[in-house]
Amino acid sequence: MFGRIDHVGVAVEDLDAAIELYSRDFEMAEQHRETVEAFGVEAVLLEVGDGHIELLRPLSADTGVGRFLKRNGPGLHHVAYATDDIEAALERVKAAGLRLIDERPRTGIRNSRVAFLHPKSTGGVLTELVEPAH
Amino acid sequence: MFGRIDHVGVAVEDLDAAIELYSRDFEMAEQHRETVEAFGVEAVLLEVGDGHIELLRPLSADTGVGRFLKRNGPGLHHVAYATDDIEAALERVKAAGLRLIDERPRTGIRNSRVAFLHPKSTGGVLTELVEPAH
Repeated sequence: MFGRIDHVGVAVEDLDAAIELYSRDFEMAEQHRETVEAFGVEAVLLEVGDGHIELLRPLSADTGVGRFLKRNGPGLHHVAYATDDIEAALERVKAAGLRLIDERPRTGIRNSRVAFLHPKSTGGVLTELVEPAH
Repeated sequence: MFGRIDHVGVAVEDLDAAIELYSRDFEMAEQHRETVEAFGVEAVLLEVGDGHIELLRPLSADTGVGRFLKRNGPGLHHVAYATDDIEAALERVKAAGLRLIDERPRTGIRNSRVAFLHPKSTGGVLTELVEPAH
């Protein structure tokens, strides 16, 4: 159902410091930067193998990532799996009885189509399905 | 420096339920199961692309993962990057001033060589370097 781990999302307070860590110390190339208003984040993608690390800085405290930071501090936020048919993948996890945050795909970074599953039905792991733009 | 995201580690309370989620609902093949006494965990690897998900059930409350569960509940625990020369990678992150949990590689699952970086110097993300067994 999933081709690979597409990315790991990391909530950050200091975006510049995080970019420095991943690009300078870990030598991951910065791939893309985008403000995704719909998700209330400034996001930076850094390349590692055929996947990436997605740094997420909240645009305000009153966003998903903003609330996460307040509750947990910076750190691992979500994991995303790549699929080439997000509708079919959503149908399958729905049929399996998993609880969805997004019943239908939304537009994510780089015009991908994304949907989140609720951590209550995935062992506390905020899980994203992503169909990259073709 | 890193070839890919080797795996994402997930702390679980109910290992059977977690295996069911990842293997049945997410269709990831169970790849390996091992009790790693040195880390105080029963670990299960499930395949996704060229990486995997590592489910971690603590052997007792008084282990790293046991304490994590008590503090945070089940969920994302760490991210691991593959390297083919863990000594060189450790030298580089040490030279960059990052704080290490393991100054030298330890033996991890499947006879890999692993070392953890301290989340205090990696933006709250418990980060593992892993050199798979050859």
